[in-house]
Amino acid sequence: MRRCVITVGDLGEFGVIARVSRRLPQGEAVLLGPGDDAALVSAPDGRVVVSTDVLIEGRHFRRRWSSGYDVGRKAAAQNLADVAAMGGVPTAIVVGLGMPADLPVAWVDELTDGFRDECALVGASVAGGDITRCDTVVVAVTVLGDLQGRAPVKRSGARPGHVVAVAGELGRSAAGLALLQSGRDPYEGEAKLLEEAVGVHLRPSPPYARGPEAARLGASAMIDVSDGLLQDLGHVAAASGVRIDLDPESFAVPEAVLAAARELEADPLDWVLSGGEDHALAAAFPPDVALPPAWRVIGGVSEGEGVYVRGRVTGPGGWDHFR
Amino acid sequence: MRRCVITVGDLGEFGVIARVSRRLPQGEAVLLGPGDDAALVSAPDGRVVVSTDVLIEGRHFRRRWSSGYDVGRKAAAQNLADVAAMGGVPTAIVVGLGMPADLPVAWVDELTDGFRDECALVGASVAGGDITRCDTVVVAVTVLGDLQGRAPVKRSGARPGHVVAVAGELGRSAAGLALLQSGRDPYEGEAKLLEEAVGVHLRPSPPYARGPEAARLGASAMIDVSDGLLQDLGHVAAASGVRIDLDPESFAVPEAVLAAARELEADPLDWVLSGGEDHALAAAFPPDVALPPAWRVIGGVSEGEGVYVRGRVTGPGGWDHFR
Repeated sequence: MRRCVITVGDLGEFGVIARVSRRLPQGEAVLLGPGDDAALVSAPDGRVVVSTDVLIEGRHFRRRWSSGYDVGRKAAAQNLADVAAMGGVPTAIVVGLGMPADLPVAWVDELTDGFRDECALVGASVAGGDITRCDTVVVAVTVLGDLQGRAPVKRSGARPGHVVAVAGELGRSAAGLALLQSGRDPYEGEAKLLEEAVGVHLRPSPPYARGPEAARLGASAMIDVSDGLLQDLGHVAAASGVRIDLDPESFAVPEAVLAAARELEADPLDWVLSGGEDHALAAAFPPDVALPPAWRVIGGVSEGEGVYVRGRVTGPGGWDHFR
Repeated sequence: MRRCVITVGDLGEFGVIARVSRRLPQGEAVLLGPGDDAALVSAPDGRVVVSTDVLIEGRHFRRRWSSGYDVGRKAAAQNLADVAAMGGVPTAIVVGLGMPADLPVAWVDELTDGFRDECALVGASVAGGDITRCDTVVVAVTVLGDLQGRAPVKRSGARPGHVVAVAGELGRSAAGLALLQSGRDPYEGEAKLLEEAVGVHLRPSPPYARGPEAARLGASAMIDVSDGLLQDLGHVAAASGVRIDLDPESFAVPEAVLAAARELEADPLDWVLSGGEDHALAAAFPPDVALPPAWRVIGGVSEGEGVYVRGRVTGPGGWDHFR
């Protein structure tokens, strides 16, 4: 019996838009949702945080590894994390989609549900979007957020004497990617831990609430760890005009990373220091700030430049999209 | 002598970002520009208008026909026009770019200048963005705007007895596209007029200021004419639950459209009624509104449904990205 798959081309542009819109509940911050030339989103303190990210099939995700739902969760997560890294609370995202005509509509449904569910974690909604035809799947997300009256926590405020701390776990996404690339069945061996690493790679879990928390605590600088801890702290060091020293002994290497390292005979610290896409938050705080347990101090700020590990200077060691 | 072309891949992700950022002045509305996890834009009345559009090389533009500058102007214009169509004033755009590594950096410079110059027309700035590698050029623009305390002008407010009016010219972009597709040299024949049509196709000129003007005048519904007048007014008719009758005798068919129709032996009215991408504004107004000369009345609203021309119902007749 031939199974009939409904594609994006079957429904057409406006059919897909109508179908997607029906799956999207709108939160309080959305004053006017999908269906007009533009959406209208509340910006309570008279300013709006905005960030954008583009994900390209074959580069940021593979449909063989990631379901539509995974891609929606991940694309939303990496944008929402950017708002958290400024100390803000996300209010809405808008999504631009490029898709081939033969893409099953079920995949778009899943993608939409992924956006919806990740946004729901922070009380945000998908307020609008655009779809168009493209040979590969392109997902362009822009996120809006609210600083609740606070100053943005920039990359440039770290000062000598401040501590560097991380909220969220590092290395699991890179370990998961390495497992996927190895072609091993992640359900073998230390199944549950390996599965966790792969799961984090496909659907990261940024510690969203820690961003506004850090801002309230008085963080002097903050960044979303998307390209690898060394590279991202390199941006903080450069923007702040300071040196950052990291002490790997103070890191909490996740069990899943240790398990993947055993499985693949790799160095777990490489993934922790240089792996991207975990979307943990790294921040600098004045030394007198009493940090809640979710923040783990991993280093300190001094005069100078660059990022050092055990006293040795490090290269960028992260991800450059053209290198 | 071999000419050395510097490519995006030569500079790398962060090199391109730094280079692009240096070309972008920031307006007053941008409280924090490129260089951090997110930008911060003022939203004076506590709300922000937001819209997004994705342009794909080969579908929305061809590098053979459009310079980088043209693409920047056009991508910005179609987004800025969406804010105008809500009655708002654009404040900032953010841009997501997918590019092949062998793309000349000069093309990206031009693209950036195109964004900058089109935004400057309305006092907006490029507040941030993201770049990544992609086999084809992908340009994802999100625009933010301010309603200056007014209610948004939606598609759904047209009522029986209202008039339908247009600001800006219709048909030139479609005529220009037809000229490009014909392969004729646009500089032959009625050179200046044909060149104008091609120019509008490559770089539309939306009547931005007419959007807030219409809102102040009390427009009951408004839309950016991006997919063709009939299709876009079809959205207004459907959202408002009304019938719209158009009188083609009242249209001002641009000279450039007439010239292109002579050149290609085509019906100029087809381009005026169904051609997309001119980004004129179409709006409904209560009958007692005294319209300034920039607004030309082209029809009326009555009870019923659909869009009629000379009393005959019309199909969508516009552009569907999957049809």
